Amino acid sequence: MEALERLREIDGQAKLVRHIAGVLGWDQETYMPPAAIEERGDQLAFLEALAHDKQTSPEIGELLAALGSTKENPGGDASLGAVERAYLRVLRRGYDQATKIPTELVAEMAKATSLSQAAWVKARKENDFPAFAQHLQKMLDFNKRIAAYLDPAKKPYDVLLDNFEEGATEEGIAAVFKPLRDELVALMAKIRSRPQVDDSALHRHCPEAAQAEASAYLMKLLSYDLERGRLDKAAHPFTTGIGDDDVRITTRYMEDFFPSSAFSTIHEGGHALYELGIDPAPGYKRTSLAEAASMAVHESQSRLWENMVGRSLGFWKNHLPAFKQYLKPSLDDLGLEGFYKAINKVEPSLIRVEADEVTYSLHVILRFELEAALMSGKLLVADLPGAWNEGMQKLLGVTPPSDDKGCLQDIHWSMGAIGYFPSYALGNLYGAQLWDAMKDQGLDPAAAVEKDELPTILAWLRANVHKPGAMYKPGELIQRVSGKPLDASHFVRYLNQKYAGVYGF
Amino acid sequence: MEALERLREIDGQAKLVRHIAGVLGWDQETYMPPAAIEERGDQLAFLEALAHDKQTSPEIGELLAALGSTKENPGGDASLGAVERAYLRVLRRGYDQATKIPTELVAEMAKATSLSQAAWVKARKENDFPAFAQHLQKMLDFNKRIAAYLDPAKKPYDVLLDNFEEGATEEGIAAVFKPLRDELVALMAKIRSRPQVDDSALHRHCPEAAQAEASAYLMKLLSYDLERGRLDKAAHPFTTGIGDDDVRITTRYMEDFFPSSAFSTIHEGGHALYELGIDPAPGYKRTSLAEAASMAVHESQSRLWENMVGRSLGFWKNHLPAFKQYLKPSLDDLGLEGFYKAINKVEPSLIRVEADEVTYSLHVILRFELEAALMSGKLLVADLPGAWNEGMQKLLGVTPPSDDKGCLQDIHWSMGAIGYFPSYALGNLYGAQLWDAMKDQGLDPAAAVEKDELPTILAWLRANVHKPGAMYKPGELIQRVSGKPLDASHFVRYLNQKYAGVYGF
Repeated sequence: MEALERLREIDGQAKLVRHIAGVLGWDQETYMPPAAIEERGDQLAFLEALAHDKQTSPEIGELLAALGSTKENPGGDASLGAVERAYLRVLRRGYDQATKIPTELVAEMAKATSLSQAAWVKARKENDFPAFAQHLQKMLDFNKRIAAYLDPAKKPYDVLLDNFEEGATEEGIAAVFKPLRDELVALMAKIRSRPQVDDSALHRHCPEAAQAEASAYLMKLLSYDLERGRLDKAAHPFTTGIGDDDVRITTRYMEDFFPSSAFSTIHEGGHALYELGIDPAPGYKRTSLAEAASMAVHESQSRLWENMVGRSLGFWKNHLPAFKQYLKPSLDDLGLEGFYKAINKVEPSLIRVEADEVTYSLHVILRFELEAALMSGKLLVADLPGAWNEGMQKLLGVTPPSDDKGCLQDIHWSMGAIGYFPSYALGNLYGAQLWDAMKDQGLDPAAAVEKDELPTILAWLRANVHKPGAMYKPGELIQRVSGKPLDASHFVRYLNQKYAGVYGF
Repeated sequence: MEALERLREIDGQAKLVRHIAGVLGWDQETYMPPAAIEERGDQLAFLEALAHDKQTSPEIGELLAALGSTKENPGGDASLGAVERAYLRVLRRGYDQATKIPTELVAEMAKATSLSQAAWVKARKENDFPAFAQHLQKMLDFNKRIAAYLDPAKKPYDVLLDNFEEGATEEGIAAVFKPLRDELVALMAKIRSRPQVDDSALHRHCPEAAQAEASAYLMKLLSYDLERGRLDKAAHPFTTGIGDDDVRITTRYMEDFFPSSAFSTIHEGGHALYELGIDPAPGYKRTSLAEAASMAVHESQSRLWENMVGRSLGFWKNHLPAFKQYLKPSLDDLGLEGFYKAINKVEPSLIRVEADEVTYSLHVILRFELEAALMSGKLLVADLPGAWNEGMQKLLGVTPPSDDKGCLQDIHWSMGAIGYFPSYALGNLYGAQLWDAMKDQGLDPAAAVEKDELPTILAWLRANVHKPGAMYKPGELIQRVSGKPLDASHFVRYLNQKYAGVYGF
């Protein structure tokens, strides 16, 4: 047990350093004066190196070995408790990921990534994919080398996917995405056959201060505890955990489109509720177990609150009157039905981050298919724009007029983050499957929303998803909670039912 | 030169860590959610230990020795340039201060200080000096032990004074304070003989948002660059340097007393201008030379802007009209003369932090005399309340009705900060002497204020005071700039002249 205590101590320090960096990162995005950026970069680099030093300390390797943790048996000695074994598994994974890749390669890639990002910014601005192509090629090559260091026996793309979604493989995700893709394309055809919804009222002028008050109202509905978090304004909404009792969110205010602030507040609030709900018990608190199970599970929490709760008819039946008080006179003449349809308008578009609930996952599936093909060599970088445009036409029926609105739109690949995209769509699937699991267990979440009993939903999520933190791999978690592996049927059923109502088919 | 480079590197890292801690400290006082306080304490303690480790690294001692720096010749080899010799002196001083005191004593005192502060909070609340007395005794004893480690050959109080004001001694400060005290008591007698000023208009209701706009106006007048700083709200106004290009201020808003926010904005703005004006050249930037010359010199910059500029008739002649626009209708019927007199009302009071420009220094002199007597043993802790009340009566003509409004009012002693108080009054003296030095050098600052040419004052302060940072000891600095050692005559003359006008004698 002494070895375990010592592990928790080192791990706790690494976490403390990451939290400190989190405060600096939050400040940078919210309040930092512009000229401070240069030194802030050095401050963050210093903390990053410090956290890395702690996380790769050979002592961790020795302690893990002493406790019987190996690559094959990461949980260590069978005599240990379930929480302890999970803890060792998580530490082993992090330690291997951090130590298997040579430091020189990390440094080399960091340098190349910085150039790649700068090139991407320029290329997107100038709509010049060829100028970015060589950088994308480098990012792919670095990722292949990294994958080979992490697990030479596996397909490189599988190794990358596993980084973000433990246990995921290209084959497994493709099997889940295939029916999702077909069903979404079919649903889109139905929607297209119906008259379009009018959402022009959402574009009426609404002052930032009024939207901020509405956001405060929404946070209260979510039971987001402002003793342990806060809402600020930033260019891009995000959630950041900078302490066990300090998980903050940001939103942005568009004065001619108030749903942007309202739904990003709910979305980020959902992320924050997850982190704030992790077990604060010793053994969890300030350890690597007090983390999300995966990026996709994290995304399930934001999307469940944003879409399944926040864009539901039952929710607005209860709250549109109060909401209109904040936003008046913008919404005075808008009825419940009209508002509900407007906030659920579906329209194929070119940009992922602006996409609605139905088309969003199609954007993600395209990226998944393309990055898999790039990693395997089936697709050459030079051919990416064509493949992208073709995919957009096939999945969404639209073709980008230029690459800046096509394959240059996202930052991820330019940062070398390959294997991350699927999480965005998997989050929708986890969310819907959890929603149905509630029903199976006797809590009808839609009825709870109708009865304005949101805390019962939160309590269920806390007990079943939030509290265990990273104790289970995402696949194990969904199996435990829903009794079966992740599949797309729940999400597809949810969408079909909802949009049959919105579009009347 | 390699040794010097290495010193700058270690020193730069220690500074980076302190700046990181500065961001966390700022956040704690402005935006941090309440429940985050526990982990924040651990984050700050971690950074404090890290900075201390860097600052006490034996390598610094070796490098200083290699460059010829000793206690007797801290600047090192005579062949070094003036900036380099100043740098070694500053580093030697910091290194000796940080390494001469045993780590166990530091830890022991930190623990005792934490208890002492808690006891002080309770004792002040319950007006129970005896309950705090034993803690104050401990703080005195710790300070004596620390002084003995730092320099056993000197009087303990002199060692403590030197910590805050390099080169200061009890005798030297007493020689400066003696005439100041006599002159202020005499000035108070004159003021008391005249009818009191009416400042009731300052207590009219004025919304926080209007005061915030007025503060923004004042910051602009000061040329406080919001690319390199910002203003936020906090319980107690403060300035914090958290990057070479990131020096932030805070203010507080009292809706029934707007001068509180206006003058604390100018005061803290003055502090910020100092730190932002330090030479950014290599050799300064991110080193221990890029610091204030002393706490008192720092205070001179805040008080010069707040009082000599911000409470002058010339300033408001130019800016009262605009100011009234922000604060209307509160000030609509107030004329320049009435406003000027109101913001300069003098009235002996019990609480230092609420004192006016004339009585403020008397509060400080009392504390100086009492802490000197406590350190020498001439005054026993048990007799402090009586001595305090007697001093208040003698200097200010008022007697605290209870210790919470008397010797329990300040936090400093409970934190073990003994020797700090004189800086507050010395700041006034430095400020007035610098003001007269400007005049001697052909820049009439009062005329510049009248002509609304504040940037010329800032430019002079930058060149003469800000730019050198910690290159000169405070006594050297004032000698270089004004041609003579610090004395009280400039401040006394300034006050007599100004208040003859305000009170008409």
